[in-house]
Amino acid sequence: MQTSTVTFTRERTIRFSDCDPAGIVFYPQYFVMFNGLVEDWFTEGLNISYQQMIMTRQIGLPMVHLEASFRAISKMGDKVLLQLKVEKLGGKSMRLLMQCVSAVDGQLRMEAKQTLVTTSLVTHQAIDIPEDFRAAITGLGFADSAQ
Amino acid sequence: MQTSTVTFTRERTIRFSDCDPAGIVFYPQYFVMFNGLVEDWFTEGLNISYQQMIMTRQIGLPMVHLEASFRAISKMGDKVLLQLKVEKLGGKSMRLLMQCVSAVDGQLRMEAKQTLVTTSLVTHQAIDIPEDFRAAITGLGFADSAQ
Amino acid sequence: MQTSTVTFTRERTIRFSDCDPAGIVFYPQYFVMFNGLVEDWFTEGLNISYQQMIMTRQIGLPMVHLEASFRAISKMGDKVLLQLKVEKLGGKSMRLLMQCVSAVDGQLRMEAKQTLVTTSLVTHQAIDIPEDFRAAITGLGFADSAQ
Amino acid sequence: MQTSTVTFTRERTIRFSDCDPAGIVFYPQYFVMFNGLVEDWFTEGLNISYQQMIMTRQIGLPMVHLEASFRAISKMGDKVLLQLKVEKLGGKSMRLLMQCVSAVDGQLRMEAKQTLVTTSLVTHQAIDIPEDFRAAITGLGFADSAQ
Repeated sequence: MQTSTVTFTRERTIRFSDCDPAGIVFYPQYFVMFNGLVEDWFTEGLNISYQQMIMTRQIGLPMVHLEASFRAISKMGDKVLLQLKVEKLGGKSMRLLMQCVSAVDGQLRMEAKQTLVTTSLVTHQAIDIPEDFRAAITGLGFADSAQ
Repeated sequence: MQTSTVTFTRERTIRFSDCDPAGIVFYPQYFVMFNGLVEDWFTEGLNISYQQMIMTRQIGLPMVHLEASFRAISKMGDKVLLQLKVEKLGGKSMRLLMQCVSAVDGQLRMEAKQTLVTTSLVTHQAIDIPEDFRAAITGLGFADSAQ
Repeated sequence: MQTSTVTFTRERTIRFSDCDPAGIVFYPQYFVMFNGLVEDWFTEGLNISYQQMIMTRQIGLPMVHLEASFRAISKMGDKVLLQLKVEKLGGKSMRLLMQCVSAVDGQLRMEAKQTLVTTSLVTHQAIDIPEDFRAAITGLGFADSAQ
Repeated sequence: MQTSTVTFTRERTIRFSDCDPAGIVFYPQYFVMFNGLVEDWFTEGLNISYQQMIMTRQIGLPMVHLEASFRAISKMGDKVLLQLKVEKLGGKSMRLLMQCVSAVDGQLRMEAKQTLVTTSLVTHQAIDIPEDFRAAITGLGFADSAQ
């Protein structure tokens, strides 16, 4: 069941450089933060080096679909939690639920569903999710093996 | 009818600074480009200064919902067209269809539907779309007055 | 003496989003990292909230002069140390020495001397360094009181 | 003589996304703009494709030294001119003077001297400035052939 799977979380402070002249997070910056969260999830959560995935194994993880809702503003200095859950683990793609919530009171600031595809960085074509990715994701409880 | 409305277009070259170690556009950068397109649409397309909107009138235009599909990669040096259409003009919000296509052969690279809300930058609460915005959008053919 | 003063240090991983199509840090990103280091130095090192400085006290800290040397490349995934020392504490300005070194072997990647001025964000004019800033900087050993 | 050489200029509007919570250009963004100016200088000014230089010829143009002075602020919506002059054309490096001035009254906003080195993107070692670069730079008057 979805609800039994593990969530990967990192804390982050909203930076001056994340914010716009309105004093709040410039929304593309949320996606930069989430990109960093995926990096950390791979390297620290799955023990699969994101750097080696890109540079040595020449595997990319581009987005094919994104849906995001912005619920409340985040301001410079705010402590937030960035959270990642695997919603669906397919053959060549996975759908992640990413959330940014206040680290103080849990208020949901924004959330995004991102569908990522594993690709060859040589051909830019989709490839099967590598077995070590799948084994780590299911073995560490981020997805049910039946997904 | 939707199909009769006007499209606002700007050409842009994909920059070195738009691209990631995979040599292609880092996807949050598309949203930075689209933010610039909305600025140009206001200032040059609608003759409403985006700068005055933010700084003097203290009106913000934050996103509440975003849905994007990434169809093909864009590489450094590519000439692309950024296109904007109004899909829905509501009371306090508007939904825009934004597309990035190749300027060479029209290939669709990515598209996004963005729902923007007019807000007070003092209270960060939604406000009615100002009358001059609505008059310019409908008067210049970007939306039907019946929308 | 300069050599007796305290250095403020933070560790950082070089991100995918920090890097360019050459696979190395896109150099303006070093300055984004250093901006974050100054934020952390204020908030965590000096116990003066950077966020309140900007938003409540309306004090800015813009750069007036910058000199930087790039010694060696940093790649995605590298662990680096960002280091800050006060070189000179003046009446309305301070000169900081910022360095980025490898967290593995101490190799100097780049260094910058940045002269920052305290300004009013209302007038954008220089103001005296506030007394609490000066007291924290000298009291905590980041500069000699005689500077 | 230096004063007889040609200046390469592009106009740019300061974007919402260039600005920080103080409502003015976030200074690393000037370097992103100047990076774009170097791209345009190569591709449009020298008729040497910057994209092919990086991706096909595997030649990089990293910075080794940078000195910048910030004279006046730029705000969202400002029209500015970005200007580039070659100050020194060496064997493996060149020093460029980059300036950002108001397009309205010519006020100097900031200027930077950047020393760039031609490198192999395979070895990241310095290489001689390619002959076609040198021929274009001197032939089009951006530097004296005696430099």
